[in-house]
Amino acid sequence: MTTDLLVEGTHFLPGADPRMLGHKTLAVNLSDLAAMGATPRWATLSASLPAIDEAWVGAFAQGLFALADRHGVDIVGGDTTRGAVLTLCVTALGEVPPDLALTRAGACAGDDIWVSGELGGAAFALLHPEVEAAARRLHAPEPRVELGERLRGIAHAAIDISDGLAGDLGHILERSQLGAIVEYERIPKEGFLTTEMEKDCVLSGGDDYELIFTAPQERRREVEALAKDLGLRLSRIGTINPGPAKLTVLDAAGKPMQFRGGFDHFAGARR
Amino acid sequence: MTTDLLVEGTHFLPGADPRMLGHKTLAVNLSDLAAMGATPRWATLSASLPAIDEAWVGAFAQGLFALADRHGVDIVGGDTTRGAVLTLCVTALGEVPPDLALTRAGACAGDDIWVSGELGGAAFALLHPEVEAAARRLHAPEPRVELGERLRGIAHAAIDISDGLAGDLGHILERSQLGAIVEYERIPKEGFLTTEMEKDCVLSGGDDYELIFTAPQERRREVEALAKDLGLRLSRIGTINPGPAKLTVLDAAGKPMQFRGGFDHFAGARR
Repeated sequence: MTTDLLVEGTHFLPGADPRMLGHKTLAVNLSDLAAMGATPRWATLSASLPAIDEAWVGAFAQGLFALADRHGVDIVGGDTTRGAVLTLCVTALGEVPPDLALTRAGACAGDDIWVSGELGGAAFALLHPEVEAAARRLHAPEPRVELGERLRGIAHAAIDISDGLAGDLGHILERSQLGAIVEYERIPKEGFLTTEMEKDCVLSGGDDYELIFTAPQERRREVEALAKDLGLRLSRIGTINPGPAKLTVLDAAGKPMQFRGGFDHFAGARR
Repeated sequence: MTTDLLVEGTHFLPGADPRMLGHKTLAVNLSDLAAMGATPRWATLSASLPAIDEAWVGAFAQGLFALADRHGVDIVGGDTTRGAVLTLCVTALGEVPPDLALTRAGACAGDDIWVSGELGGAAFALLHPEVEAAARRLHAPEPRVELGERLRGIAHAAIDISDGLAGDLGHILERSQLGAIVEYERIPKEGFLTTEMEKDCVLSGGDDYELIFTAPQERRREVEALAKDLGLRLSRIGTINPGPAKLTVLDAAGKPMQFRGGFDHFAGARR
């Protein structure tokens, strides 16, 4: 069971394309289920809207239902209400066989660290909305549902990238009470990133909705075969180690890099 | 599975007591489950907040968890984010044995129409916040969880009163494709209502979170025994009839009364 709240002005800009917003509102929840290795089954949608605009609602529903249908998800209920700020809340339920759910807490020292797809695109789009491929990554992320299902019994721990690689891998480290070394050169990066923004987008940019997972070294071949099978790039970017819950990212010369942590909505608001 | 969105300025006033708001945010969802005859089990809470105020969050959590504990509900997850308007979304899951879930669609011609508790208090509190008993009805409604569970196999249809007796009984009539006659004199009313506001508060005022249910006449004794058992007033206020999906409310002289329908958040916004 997972829930996500999307708020206009915080998670998307006023005037966001309603079809893509419908897609993304459900996608971020399916991504959470994928990170648990769960098959998505049902979802509810609650929406607070300043007014009813039927064309907007129709396009939003189209985007949401197209993704729901593709993954066999039934939208079983919801709540619509009036409010000054467009706010969307999806709660999704998935199924996973007993004891096979993936969590953030299961990583083991010696595990390989893997990531799906290419990173940095969504963060880049915030600054360069004119780059179409980047905009697609930001507004129409593809939840890695099938990958999550296939990682059952293979991965030890998993999480989806909503706050950025460093922040989300950090959640695995905190919950598993282990450290990690990641080689920056091994991280798969979107081709359109500019040199000066690359590091921030790749390590600290959120919203990519790719999966990070850890798996024992003995399962490397299986993970590689899975990548081929799914037609999805899976990259081995580092190793879990027995140290304290700290992430070290090494540059090409083997030197630790500086980077910003994950995103905190209240970073500026907290006293 | 049920979900409700509460938005500051729409469902509660800025400055609402956080403890009572925590209670109510969960209560409205447990009330929905009660109307389905379900035993509440799990819930998630998503919140969009303008800023983090730890005292506020603590009091809110206290109100929410006190009610959750009382009904054995586990809060299993959530999402916290920043947004200009305080918005709360709870999704709750309950369990009910196969084929025993109560719906709005199950009413039968000839059924008695019952309602729990006393009506009109919450609506009255909006206009007279100084009346403490009314304020309690508005801000700290008690979800009729046990009643809902005990109505399994007895009631044909049920709904909770969030939009007002007329509006919510109207939902049963629409979904069951049947009519209803209600005798106004039989409706249980809060003692503190003033004469000139009584009808609007009782028939059209929302937020009472009492249950309306229909049950066959042969089960009258059982319903009466249940009321005694639960220490909860259950009043027989009318009858389902085979006519079109229309509610008729008769006054003491047997004459049809005029009344406003249910609440529509977008009544003023729709073109």
